[in-house]
Amino acid sequence: MKLTILRNELNDAIQHVSKAVSSRTTIPILSGIKLEASFTGVTLTASDTDIAIQSFIPLETPDKTIGTVERMGSVVLPAKFFVEIVKKLPHEEVHIDVGERFQTLITSGSAEIQLVGLDPEEFPVLPTIQEDQVFSIPGDILRDMIRQTVFAVTTNEASPILTGVLWNLQDGVFKLVATDRHRLASRTSPVDTQEVRFSNVVISGKTLSELAKIVPDQNVLVDIVVADNQVLFKLGNVLFFSRMLDGTYPDTSKIIPQNFKTELVLNTKLLSDSIDRAYLLSREEKTNIVRLATTENGGIEISSSSSELGRVNEQLDVKEFHGEQIRIAFNSKYMLDVLKIIDSEQLFIGFTGAMSPIIIKPRDHDNGLHLILPYRTTN
Amino acid sequence: MKLTILRNELNDAIQHVSKAVSSRTTIPILSGIKLEASFTGVTLTASDTDIAIQSFIPLETPDKTIGTVERMGSVVLPAKFFVEIVKKLPHEEVHIDVGERFQTLITSGSAEIQLVGLDPEEFPVLPTIQEDQVFSIPGDILRDMIRQTVFAVTTNEASPILTGVLWNLQDGVFKLVATDRHRLASRTSPVDTQEVRFSNVVISGKTLSELAKIVPDQNVLVDIVVADNQVLFKLGNVLFFSRMLDGTYPDTSKIIPQNFKTELVLNTKLLSDSIDRAYLLSREEKTNIVRLATTENGGIEISSSSSELGRVNEQLDVKEFHGEQIRIAFNSKYMLDVLKIIDSEQLFIGFTGAMSPIIIKPRDHDNGLHLILPYRTTN
Repeated sequence: MKLTILRNELNDAIQHVSKAVSSRTTIPILSGIKLEASFTGVTLTASDTDIAIQSFIPLETPDKTIGTVERMGSVVLPAKFFVEIVKKLPHEEVHIDVGERFQTLITSGSAEIQLVGLDPEEFPVLPTIQEDQVFSIPGDILRDMIRQTVFAVTTNEASPILTGVLWNLQDGVFKLVATDRHRLASRTSPVDTQEVRFSNVVISGKTLSELAKIVPDQNVLVDIVVADNQVLFKLGNVLFFSRMLDGTYPDTSKIIPQNFKTELVLNTKLLSDSIDRAYLLSREEKTNIVRLATTENGGIEISSSSSELGRVNEQLDVKEFHGEQIRIAFNSKYMLDVLKIIDSEQLFIGFTGAMSPIIIKPRDHDNGLHLILPYRTTN
Repeated sequence: MKLTILRNELNDAIQHVSKAVSSRTTIPILSGIKLEASFTGVTLTASDTDIAIQSFIPLETPDKTIGTVERMGSVVLPAKFFVEIVKKLPHEEVHIDVGERFQTLITSGSAEIQLVGLDPEEFPVLPTIQEDQVFSIPGDILRDMIRQTVFAVTTNEASPILTGVLWNLQDGVFKLVATDRHRLASRTSPVDTQEVRFSNVVISGKTLSELAKIVPDQNVLVDIVVADNQVLFKLGNVLFFSRMLDGTYPDTSKIIPQNFKTELVLNTKLLSDSIDRAYLLSREEKTNIVRLATTENGGIEISSSSSELGRVNEQLDVKEFHGEQIRIAFNSKYMLDVLKIIDSEQLFIGFTGAMSPIIIKPRDHDNGLHLILPYRTTN
C-alpha cells in the first residue's frame, strides 16, 4: 500500500473511527486502526467487541483531489499513537508507504515516522448485514432522541438489559425508552415507513452516546438498518455497526399512570432553577431529597433541608393547577436530569399520590414522557 | 448583622476568597467564609493553614450603590454551599440577616435560605504584618513570572523546600527560581526599589498558582509586602496572605554553566512542534526520551524510538550554530514545559557536553533562563 492523502481529511476519518477503539482490549489487533487503499479511496476501520466504525475517504470529491493511491493494499496501525500524531503532522499532505512485514513509513514535511504495522488479515471482518429493514431519520432528531433518553439507563451491570435503550418501531412511530427502575425516559418520533417494524431492539447506552457524537450537525438523513442482532447506522461516508444487547426488555407500559389526581403546568426554566438551588443543599446530605408541595394560594413550594447546614425553600407560581393538594419528595438529581433536556418552555407534571410515579411531559408537543418514582419519606 | 448587597459583587468577592478554603480541613471553622459588615462595606475572609484571602466590598463606588448595612456584625457561613448558592440566586439583590446563635437567613427574590452559621470569634485572626519591606510590580508581569517558573517545582513532599519557588530581590532586580533537581526555571524582572532587598523567601508553588488566578488581567500594580515569615499581596480590594516555607533553599547558581561548547539559535514554535511529535512516541515507552543531534549539513535532527511502535525523526533548520557537534538525550516532557512558556520567537540552546546541563533562553530578552539535565544513555 502506498498513498498520498490530505492530513485534515485523514484526521477527520481517524477521529470518527477512533471512537470504536477500545483502550483496554485483550486482543492486540483491536488496539489498531485498519487502513485499506483502493483506487477509489481509503477505508478506515476500528472495532471493539460491541461496535465497529468504518469511514471512507474518497480520493476525489467534486471540489478537490483528496488523495492518490499508488499501490493498493492494507495495514493495521497502532491507534493511540496514530490518532495523536496525524493531528500534529507539519505538512498538509501525508504519505503512507507500507513495506515488508507491514513496516509503515509515514512522511509529512520534514517529519518521518516509521511504524510497526500489523497484519490486516488478523483484523475482524465486519458483519454482513441483511438490508431488509431500513428506515431514515434526520440526524438532529436522532441525536435529540438519544440525548433525551440515554441519561436514564442504569450503570449497574447487574441488570445488563437496563444499561441499554429500548428501540421500537410500529406503524410509523419510532420510540426510545430507557429506565433504571427509579425513573424512565421515553421519546417518540414519526418516521416515514409503514413496512419496517421491530420491537425489543436494545442498544447499549454507551454506544448510543458515542453514536450521537458522530451524527453530523447538518440536517441530513441517517439510514438505520435493523438486522438479526446488529444495527447499522449510515452517516454519509461513515458506517457505524452496533451489536444489540441480549435479553428481553421489561414491559414498562403498565407503570405509567394514565389519570392524575393533581396536574400542574409550570415554566420549565423557573422550576429547574428552583430545584437546582434546593438540590445544592440536598446534595450535602447525600440523599438529594427535595420536596414539592402545593400551597393554599394555588402555587407550589420547593424545599430541602440538611441537619448540618439548614434549609432552602421557595414559592413558585404555577400556570395551571387542577386537582388535589399534594406533598411529595423525590431525587432532585433525577428531576434536574429531566428538566435539562425538556425542549419546551412549559411543562406538565402529573401526580397520582405521594407514593406513586411522577410524570413530567413537555407542553409544546407530545413526543416526550418522563417518569420519576418518589421517595417514601415519613413527613 | 443585617445587610443588602448586589449578588454579582458578592459573588465576585466569594470567588476570590474561596481559593483559600481547604476542602479537607480538620478544623471545622476553616471550612467556612467569614463575613463582616461595617458601615463602609462587607469584608469576606477565608483561610487555610498556608494562605488567607480577604476581599472587601465597598458599599458605595463612584458608579453605584453596591449595598446597605442595617446592622453591623459578623458570621461564618459554610463555604462550599455558600459559594454555589450565591451564584444561582434568582434576584440581583441579596439580603442577609444573622439572628440568634448565628442562624442566618439569606433571601433573594422568592428564594429563602436558612443557614446554620458559626461563631466568627472562633475564626483565626489574620496576621499583623510589618509594612517595612514593600515593593510594587505590574500584575501581568507577576503572573508571567509565576507561570514561567512554577511548573518546575517538585511535587515530591520529601523535599518540602523544593515544592516552593525562591524569591529574591537585590539592587532592584526581582528574581524567581524553581527546581526539582532535574530541571530549573528562573525569571527576573527589574522593579522600582533600591531599598527593599530580601533573599531565601520561599513560597509554595501551589499557593503561587492560586495567587496567579486572582491577579487581575488589567495592567494594575500589585503591592507586595515581605515580612518575617509571611508575604502579603495587595490586589486592589483583595488581600492575599501567604506563609513562607521553612528551610534554606539550595544555592543553584553554581550548576548553571556560563560557557558552552555548542550554541544553537532555533525557531521556538518549530522546535516545540517537532519535539511534541517525538514526545508522542517516547511517551508510549514511559521514558519520554527524545534525542537531539546536530547534523553534517549544519542543522539538527530530533528523534525518538519505541521498541514496540517504531521511530520518529525529523530534520530542523537552525538559525545559528556555533561550536562542536553534539548528540544528547533528554526528558521531552520537561523540554516541552519550557518551550510552552518561552515568550520569544527564537530561542538559544547551549550545551557543554552530552552529560552536562542544557540551557534554554529566550532570544528577545534576557529575563528568562531554563536548565534541563540530560539523560545518560548509552547510544
